[in-house]
Amino acid sequence: MRCPLSRPAISVDALLSEVTEILTGAGFCDAQARALAATIVAGERDGCKSHGIYRLEGCLRTVKAGKVDPTALPELADAGGGVIRVLAHDGFSPAAFDLGLPVLCERARDLGLAALVINDCTHFSALWPEIEAITAQGLAGLAMCPSYATVAPAGGSAALLGTNPLAFGWPRGDAPPYVFDFATSVAARGEIELHRQAGKPLPEGWAVDAQGQPTTDPEAALAGAMLPFGAHKGSAISTMIELLAGAMIGDLTSPEALDYLGTTTLAPHHGELILALDPAKFAAGRAGDPMARAEGLFTAILGQGARLPSQRRFAAREQALTQGIALTEAEVALLARLRRQGLDAVD
Amino acid sequence: MRCPLSRPAISVDALLSEVTEILTGAGFCDAQARALAATIVAGERDGCKSHGIYRLEGCLRTVKAGKVDPTALPELADAGGGVIRVLAHDGFSPAAFDLGLPVLCERARDLGLAALVINDCTHFSALWPEIEAITAQGLAGLAMCPSYATVAPAGGSAALLGTNPLAFGWPRGDAPPYVFDFATSVAARGEIELHRQAGKPLPEGWAVDAQGQPTTDPEAALAGAMLPFGAHKGSAISTMIELLAGAMIGDLTSPEALDYLGTTTLAPHHGELILALDPAKFAAGRAGDPMARAEGLFTAILGQGARLPSQRRFAAREQALTQGIALTEAEVALLARLRRQGLDAVD
Repeated sequence: MRCPLSRPAISVDALLSEVTEILTGAGFCDAQARALAATIVAGERDGCKSHGIYRLEGCLRTVKAGKVDPTALPELADAGGGVIRVLAHDGFSPAAFDLGLPVLCERARDLGLAALVINDCTHFSALWPEIEAITAQGLAGLAMCPSYATVAPAGGSAALLGTNPLAFGWPRGDAPPYVFDFATSVAARGEIELHRQAGKPLPEGWAVDAQGQPTTDPEAALAGAMLPFGAHKGSAISTMIELLAGAMIGDLTSPEALDYLGTTTLAPHHGELILALDPAKFAAGRAGDPMARAEGLFTAILGQGARLPSQRRFAAREQALTQGIALTEAEVALLARLRRQGLDAVD
Repeated sequence: MRCPLSRPAISVDALLSEVTEILTGAGFCDAQARALAATIVAGERDGCKSHGIYRLEGCLRTVKAGKVDPTALPELADAGGGVIRVLAHDGFSPAAFDLGLPVLCERARDLGLAALVINDCTHFSALWPEIEAITAQGLAGLAMCPSYATVAPAGGSAALLGTNPLAFGWPRGDAPPYVFDFATSVAARGEIELHRQAGKPLPEGWAVDAQGQPTTDPEAALAGAMLPFGAHKGSAISTMIELLAGAMIGDLTSPEALDYLGTTTLAPHHGELILALDPAKFAAGRAGDPMARAEGLFTAILGQGARLPSQRRFAAREQALTQGIALTEAEVALLARLRRQGLDAVD
């Protein structure tokens, strides 16, 4: 949750304009700037600081390193079946997703389900903005992608898998959707970094050291590998993501993505797989309304004091939309500097 | 792994004949008997005793209780899109799956992906036999289904979700496929029962008692609820399974399945969702062979001493196929009794 708004707040729309202008000023074409800005501001709006304006510098650094094309125009390749492909042509992923989304949804309504493959993108963003774009169309969505090799498989000793996020969403009419979006590593790399900075040991089971031995030392963990969530089960899911959203779609797996870039400090280059499913088609001819029956399940979950995923994010969103987003002085200064200096503001 | 074969062994084919005859003798029609026997014998063959001939009594009990129709003829409902539906008409699931499989695979090859929905079945079997039938066709498969409400959502206090298995497979040519199949609960109910019988406390994090408090007492756990694997992440995946393979396909969720049957001692009645994806279609036009690239990933996993899921099962299979299956005297007696008495052998 955000702090009380003692600082002056900027409206979501104003922040969107500002971030779009920063990107345009740094050489992004309109489609890339609009889509990337919308994704970054959605993160900031929802209180996901780790996917908010803090990421701008990393995006610009990746441009400056020549690892992403800020003027790329994504290209739709649609043979009319259940697989819609968007070639990102080395641009950021959000513009590619925006191009594919209407076709994905139309095809899912037609066939019952369809898949959007994004190839050759620099992947940027959490997966939930994409999932929510699908649930807004009354469809269920499932998305996954590799990342960098920073996670050891369960029973293994060295980084091979990525933090490989998995996200799912179910539409709930006018209410915020049921959405989860999580890394298949037990923790995010940033959380290990935070423990290091605070001089605190890691919980057991988070990581192995460079020799593949379990460690609670954050330094040793950063030099070693993280572990998957849920032991062998999470490891199997993470491996599935490498297979489906790497090898199967003809794009880089996490070890290949790390080889390609040679560093984890720039935004990663790989593909993504997104499925959309139409409950109306799947439930056709059956008794009961799937939407109403899902609501019964959510009511039962909430009724025993458990939370639905993303509740905190939706609360932050509501506050941001009504009261604006309170940026820190450092954040305001960052935006001003990026706006003034463009790519010169980053190494 | 099986014990050394000091007992006389029965061949896999002979056991298949015997189990098929037991089912036929108990009133199963040919399609139901063949499909169910193949599933049960596959479990026994692979050393999965919990899904082997031990299950025969439960199947017959469910028939005797009038909760499953052993003569049901499943019906294909195919509108030609990406969703193929098989109405099991209150029969066991394997015959329904057998009917849908060829259409599912053909459609996945045509569209790139397709879904098989099984409705109104008494669900029997692990999901891996179905997944392996899909990988045998050179396709990737993903399957899931609800079960009974025996698992509390993370942060909750009472049984609501099922043990909701999730299974995935990737074809590997002539080698056994990459396959995982696991419950989304942290442990199986049977494992809690084994702890109870042995008078041993449960590991932390397996269960809550009837008041929703964490417990390591097996009795209290059996009266309370199990917990999902991987805390909130596993809980979210389990909820997704209720939504996709329950509400979305117009079939029972786990709490509804428990209400319907009123007991967890009979085989559960609900539906199932199975996706098939064609790597050839997903990788079309891209550099590199997805099969070869997947093998590179498996080699890297094995190279650091980690295992692939199902390795133990495939080893047991190889032994069973070459040396037969050694049944205990009690198992031989069970088969003889079921053959002699049919439904009269069970309560």
